Amino acid sequence: MALDDMIDEISVIRSIRERFKNKSKGISLGVGDDAAAVKVSPECLLLATTDSQVEGVHFTKGLISASDLGRRAVAVSVSDIGAMGGVPRFFLSSLGFSRQEDKGLLKGIMDGFERAEGEFKVALIGGNISASDRLFLDITVLGEVEPHIMVKRTGAKPGDIIYVTGTVGDSALGLRILEMGRRNEREDYLISRHVSPQPRLALGREIAQMRLPTSMIDISDGVILDLERITVENGLGADIYVEQIPLSSDYRARVSDFAQDPYDIALSGGEDYELLFTSPQENGEGIKEISMKLGVKITEIGRVTDEPIIRVLNSDGKEIEVKHRGFIHFSA
Amino acid sequence: MALDDMIDEISVIRSIRERFKNKSKGISLGVGDDAAAVKVSPECLLLATTDSQVEGVHFTKGLISASDLGRRAVAVSVSDIGAMGGVPRFFLSSLGFSRQEDKGLLKGIMDGFERAEGEFKVALIGGNISASDRLFLDITVLGEVEPHIMVKRTGAKPGDIIYVTGTVGDSALGLRILEMGRRNEREDYLISRHVSPQPRLALGREIAQMRLPTSMIDISDGVILDLERITVENGLGADIYVEQIPLSSDYRARVSDFAQDPYDIALSGGEDYELLFTSPQENGEGIKEISMKLGVKITEIGRVTDEPIIRVLNSDGKEIEVKHRGFIHFSA
Repeated sequence: MALDDMIDEISVIRSIRERFKNKSKGISLGVGDDAAAVKVSPECLLLATTDSQVEGVHFTKGLISASDLGRRAVAVSVSDIGAMGGVPRFFLSSLGFSRQEDKGLLKGIMDGFERAEGEFKVALIGGNISASDRLFLDITVLGEVEPHIMVKRTGAKPGDIIYVTGTVGDSALGLRILEMGRRNEREDYLISRHVSPQPRLALGREIAQMRLPTSMIDISDGVILDLERITVENGLGADIYVEQIPLSSDYRARVSDFAQDPYDIALSGGEDYELLFTSPQENGEGIKEISMKLGVKITEIGRVTDEPIIRVLNSDGKEIEVKHRGFIHFSA
Repeated sequence: MALDDMIDEISVIRSIRERFKNKSKGISLGVGDDAAAVKVSPECLLLATTDSQVEGVHFTKGLISASDLGRRAVAVSVSDIGAMGGVPRFFLSSLGFSRQEDKGLLKGIMDGFERAEGEFKVALIGGNISASDRLFLDITVLGEVEPHIMVKRTGAKPGDIIYVTGTVGDSALGLRILEMGRRNEREDYLISRHVSPQPRLALGREIAQMRLPTSMIDISDGVILDLERITVENGLGADIYVEQIPLSSDYRARVSDFAQDPYDIALSGGEDYELLFTSPQENGEGIKEISMKLGVKITEIGRVTDEPIIRVLNSDGKEIEVKHRGFIHFSA
């Protein structure tokens, strides 16, 4: 469940979840995680997740091609399935489309869907096109996972290490570069991280199969906000060691033009679709092995604490203020 | 797959279907029917369908309460499951919501979801809220059906009788009354048909279990347009006997204020969510029995022909012109 910052997400979702508690048999996991899970057989849970891309909110038309837009809308929901340790299988698309719209846009979006099919091994099975003066794409992805493998947001324990895959902040920085106007090809990596995010499907699946994470989420809205979704779920908190936040070299090279503190955008910027997960210290070796095997960096960025607050610490162990904690209205 | 009239739906869906043919094993039915069907076990197909309600296109805020809007958005997709002979089980909701929006609106929509849960025996399992300057609700409903019971759009044969449940045109007339301003309680039935449509779940299930229909669809966009979706699928046509189109007494009493020809709105107006199905003549008795048992009128309105065109005939057997054939760009 992703929510924009205009409402206090946690309280809204709490109230929705309270109202729509798992009343029906067959629901393993209802409102409030990356995806819902319902039982279809003893060995298989069906995963379902939905996410929207709205013009002017999640994308600006001139800054992303229709094909990238279509692919990206699928990638975003596929990422939620990966964050459960699952395998995406099918998707449905609901498009809102203006009467004035260029027909090439629809073709471009379908091109993107076809790329998504190939890359993520999913199949478009249905959909809907509505008139709407504002372009939107709403994608529902269905996937599957074995019940004993599924990784939820709940399950983190005090003392667990917090890990992040890949690097963070690239997508947010890429977007800012796009908005300013791309100047040269050295910016292409950051831009591609924004327009063509790569959900960590294989990695999410592998660490789930090895039963390594105690909780997991994909980073759609920023490290701190998404981590908070885990800590709040578990009534816990976290210490983040800011200098351990993994930054790409392209990010490091360009960030100073956009922010004084290099970690500012990395902590608050979303849409990296990296995985953030918690795991007991003794799993460190197993995690290292998977990181080597798949060639994906996995970095320890902090620890789960039993104090229900997220603190960001510098190398001296001093708490530092993070500028864009704007999303967070939570205090236990 | 429902499409507004701004694009030639049939050609769009054809091209989309052509591109996204069932490549993946496990897909029983892909793009182009009321719902998609994927195999989850030998005895069970998972049905999935998605539909949007966009402010200013599918509804006007002042004319429908938030609770009715929420319930209606679910009802519309539930109806697609019913039109396959299936049982709805779960739904996901994607909401687009302006920052300026009254918080009561969200609560009202949730009230409507709760009503839908009770009425249609479905459970909200997940969702998403996005910022959007135009309110939209996109609902994905998941359901199930036994493979041998599922009714598709394909399967109609020349000579099959065309049946419609209940009455048609009420919702379209109700909307016009709402737009003009309700004057008295004698209009409430027509208005309720618009704001609180009743998908024919029990009936759809029962006739499918009895294996009576050769093809079926729910009437979301009008008798002729939805019938055409069936005839085109089957490379066939139909004769419609206009005076057999079932009209409610409230519709008959009020229609003259809005149209010269009483059948005009009934043929072209959508959103009744009645079922339209085809069945060989010899099934007539079985259909009558179900109609009696469930207390739902089922009316014979025409016949499937092998000439790929839909003709609307008066009681003399003469073809009459239907004013609002506006949706139809098809000619074989």
